[in-house]
Amino acid sequence: MVDIVVFGSVAFDSIKTPFGETNKTLGGSGTYASIAASFFSKPGIVSAVGSDFGTDNMGVLKKKGIDLTGLELMPGKTFFWKGEYGHDINSAKTLEVQFNVLENFKPELPTEYKKADFLLLGNNNPEAQLNVLKQMKKRPKLVIADTMNYYIEHKRDKVLEVVKEADICLMNDGEARMLFNTPSLLKAAKEIIKLNSDLAIIKKGEHGALLSTAKGSFVAPAYPLEEVVDPTGCGDCFAGAMIGFLAKQGTVNEELMRKAIIYGSTVASFNAEGMGTEKLCSISIKDIEARFNEFKEIVRF
Amino acid sequence: MVDIVVFGSVAFDSIKTPFGETNKTLGGSGTYASIAASFFSKPGIVSAVGSDFGTDNMGVLKKKGIDLTGLELMPGKTFFWKGEYGHDINSAKTLEVQFNVLENFKPELPTEYKKADFLLLGNNNPEAQLNVLKQMKKRPKLVIADTMNYYIEHKRDKVLEVVKEADICLMNDGEARMLFNTPSLLKAAKEIIKLNSDLAIIKKGEHGALLSTAKGSFVAPAYPLEEVVDPTGCGDCFAGAMIGFLAKQGTVNEELMRKAIIYGSTVASFNAEGMGTEKLCSISIKDIEARFNEFKEIVRF
Repeated sequence: MVDIVVFGSVAFDSIKTPFGETNKTLGGSGTYASIAASFFSKPGIVSAVGSDFGTDNMGVLKKKGIDLTGLELMPGKTFFWKGEYGHDINSAKTLEVQFNVLENFKPELPTEYKKADFLLLGNNNPEAQLNVLKQMKKRPKLVIADTMNYYIEHKRDKVLEVVKEADICLMNDGEARMLFNTPSLLKAAKEIIKLNSDLAIIKKGEHGALLSTAKGSFVAPAYPLEEVVDPTGCGDCFAGAMIGFLAKQGTVNEELMRKAIIYGSTVASFNAEGMGTEKLCSISIKDIEARFNEFKEIVRF
Repeated sequence: MVDIVVFGSVAFDSIKTPFGETNKTLGGSGTYASIAASFFSKPGIVSAVGSDFGTDNMGVLKKKGIDLTGLELMPGKTFFWKGEYGHDINSAKTLEVQFNVLENFKPELPTEYKKADFLLLGNNNPEAQLNVLKQMKKRPKLVIADTMNYYIEHKRDKVLEVVKEADICLMNDGEARMLFNTPSLLKAAKEIIKLNSDLAIIKKGEHGALLSTAKGSFVAPAYPLEEVVDPTGCGDCFAGAMIGFLAKQGTVNEELMRKAIIYGSTVASFNAEGMGTEKLCSISIKDIEARFNEFKEIVRF
């Protein structure tokens, strides 16, 4: 039985940053989010890989306790992304995308996944996200969705439907401003709350995250890092650790949500310290707890 | 006797933002910083105004308990700045500058100012800042300096001297990155600490501020505002409230510095809610204390 269903890509990434280079290593939003969630609970991935994926990569995911019943093995090649980060480490330049097996992938949730209480809809086409949500037998306790500028620009109405249907639709500050056409983050947050009548979380990259409810705001810092080695997957780690922590608690409220955001920032900060999933795969829950506690000192006054 | 010497401009500003317009109203870095400091301690301004300044403007400063012994009345007109903010409320477009009486102003500290324990060197030519510092009879307990991109670009060596001579040289994230040629704020902070062997504070605008010491970091959020009506003077209010609070304590340590940063953010956030000094002049220390306490709830997890 899985605690969390993670709908997101499993991929090969070739990444170049000022600090290093990887060649066709394990990546994808589903991979990062599942590994991040696995420190707290049992996630299952819904995605597809090709015949080139290999047992070693399967092994990495299995070792993390991730359920792979929902990971289809399809004829063809695994989704491939090639990107480069320059001096401004916060924005990637995509050099190549090969959708490969994900081109025609129609996600079908395994029966036992349909009863999960926690659902993470990784950054994807909003129609595909809504389709996965519809397959759930009962409404999960918590649905977190992720989105990006491309879909906000090209499928605004569908993204708004995701904001409405999910409990939390994660976006970054630029995306929130774009979606609601306002320079004010707090106004964008209020628009999100109007749609889903609960809360809004807006990611601010190296500046942390904002949680906004009808009652007020929680402003979480990002962990101050001297060097961001590779930011690929940090957003997915943030979402994955958040939902992983909440699934472990079995319930959701504002107090736990504040903690979940700090756990999200913690795991994302570790991930940024290594190329690809390298660092993420080398840390333990003890490392995460230690850095979580450091956050208390970082905001204390 | 003044607690704090504030070296900074007293000016007339004509400001246009998406939310309003002012015409030749009281402004200048020395004005904003002194008013912000006056909620906590007694500041004295070192600057010059022209014969057009008027008793009503003098009255505004006096009413705040600001000492004006160091404010020279010179023949000619008061410094004038005209600026406009667009959709991106964080950066001003300067439309007109008339230096007027400040063109030939050579600051001479009144005798009693030279013994003050707290000195704020507002954003100014670094040579002028160093000259004012040299006039002090004894090294003050705390010297805070402010700077800006123009001086970093054109007088880098002198700005570095200010960083070395002052206890805190305030700059924003872009300026810190520019001064030390690094995308990493934490690296820039370390360079500052190398120069003054103590601590670094980097302002991050709507994202708050970073305090960095050899021991670690304090990350302060900005107060989440739905609308920034006019950001003019917010940096000066931040510095002024910081040094005002510390002067009231009479001593400086990291614990107090963390609180000082939150007081700085608090007063700056009020200032942003009105055109010019309008809001700043309408609040009381009670309002400031209430918002200071709100910050505790904003960062709690």
